[in-house]
Amino acid sequence: MASPRWCFVNGKIVSVQNANINVRNLGLQRGYGVFEFIRMYGGVPFRLAEHLARLKNSARALYLSLPISAQRIERIIGFLLEKNKIGEADIRILVLAKNFDKDAKSFSSDICILLEQPHTYPQSAHTKGIKLITKEHQREFARAKTINYLSAFHDHIRRLRRGALETLYVSNGKALECTTSNFFIFRRNVLITPRRDILLGITRKFVLSLARKYFVIQERNIRLQELRGASEAFIAATNKEIMPVIKIDSLRIGNGKAGVNTKFLITLFEDAVR
Amino acid sequence: MASPRWCFVNGKIVSVQNANINVRNLGLQRGYGVFEFIRMYGGVPFRLAEHLARLKNSARALYLSLPISAQRIERIIGFLLEKNKIGEADIRILVLAKNFDKDAKSFSSDICILLEQPHTYPQSAHTKGIKLITKEHQREFARAKTINYLSAFHDHIRRLRRGALETLYVSNGKALECTTSNFFIFRRNVLITPRRDILLGITRKFVLSLARKYFVIQERNIRLQELRGASEAFIAATNKEIMPVIKIDSLRIGNGKAGVNTKFLITLFEDAVR
Repeated sequence: MASPRWCFVNGKIVSVQNANINVRNLGLQRGYGVFEFIRMYGGVPFRLAEHLARLKNSARALYLSLPISAQRIERIIGFLLEKNKIGEADIRILVLAKNFDKDAKSFSSDICILLEQPHTYPQSAHTKGIKLITKEHQREFARAKTINYLSAFHDHIRRLRRGALETLYVSNGKALECTTSNFFIFRRNVLITPRRDILLGITRKFVLSLARKYFVIQERNIRLQELRGASEAFIAATNKEIMPVIKIDSLRIGNGKAGVNTKFLITLFEDAVR
Repeated sequence: MASPRWCFVNGKIVSVQNANINVRNLGLQRGYGVFEFIRMYGGVPFRLAEHLARLKNSARALYLSLPISAQRIERIIGFLLEKNKIGEADIRILVLAKNFDKDAKSFSSDICILLEQPHTYPQSAHTKGIKLITKEHQREFARAKTINYLSAFHDHIRRLRRGALETLYVSNGKALECTTSNFFIFRRNVLITPRRDILLGITRKFVLSLARKYFVIQERNIRLQELRGASEAFIAATNKEIMPVIKIDSLRIGNGKAGVNTKFLITLFEDAVR
């Protein structure tokens, strides 16, 4: 699939090459903005309503007013798929602070909707599992999907060097979330995942809904000491789906291979979306 | 003074209205970038070499490669002053991550140099002093001047409501720095200012160099309990120069008026730059 050529910026359809944000925008001068990233399955944006609801919440948390409605965003996505003559793509919606509104109680914003060529990971990430490294960090405004990825991007080289796919943020002795995914462990047939101080992932929620029939679910803090007793671990995210975790720093999880429960969840996930 | 019309973006002089960054840029998609903000006095950028050295350090801390040299930046600033037919302006240099370099060990970047109409504060901020509110927060990569101002901008409404000009970040029982300024206290004739976990301000350094002749200087952590015993407090920044602090949350500093030592430093500062 070629890179989609057309995108939406502030009411206009423009070519991605000419899709620009003015340098006076506070989003780029001050890193002040929120976004959503949505995957499609079978030509349909996955859980679009939930993503748009979260976008609204993220914006509200930062006093950003959304310049267009969720309904309009949905129509624009449909139009962009038509215009780009493609059936499927990843979707990025970016809302950046433009300026203070007159009342100084909120920010006007720029909005971009971009289709992107899906980023693929090696199949082995799903079958053999991946490694995580940890970092002492807690995201600001954890419930909001802000554009602040300083920590995430800064850690890129350390991940490469260590053969890790993601960084697990830990804070006050607890495992929280990864840079762009949620974190889960199994203790035998109990599935545990944090609920506080993290971004509540759409995929996280979907995985929990699939797992509920088969496992006991605990949404609660995960103490770092508990990682040693975890029989399995995995991460979940829109663009990563489910990936078993076999190592965290130097700690081997379970027997160091993708766990049976995790593999079962991957099968459930595949069946549900494809 | 009218708003300067021309600016520099990635090798070109363009009108500010048409000065754009592409939406694929990682600076705006991921809040990954650094900047400098420089004031001019008497037609000369104040401490430009120090600002450019810090920009280089900030960029290095984020693995950003600067696309042009400090010398070239200096020449461009001169050219922009000519082209805009103005003798003085604030200068903003913005360096935003564009993409991973091929070696995946650094980021290529976009660079913008903007002249801005100086933002002025009421004279009373310097004569009568200002109020601060506090917030539990510590900047990520504190030594680097990153574009992450989530906390700073989010706090804007709370500041307005409380009549405060700045938010003082506190962490682990220590006073660190304000959102865009450094923080100082006097205990009689001892001037104390933090040195760790803060951005080392250019104005901070200049103020210390002025003060050294007249006061004992301590660059060290300031415990929150110490604020109660402070006879004076003030903030310093490029665009704020020196502003006496007369209240922090509900705590009155000293006798609640601009302190004599602070007023003396303001005079020294004025004499040095004007």
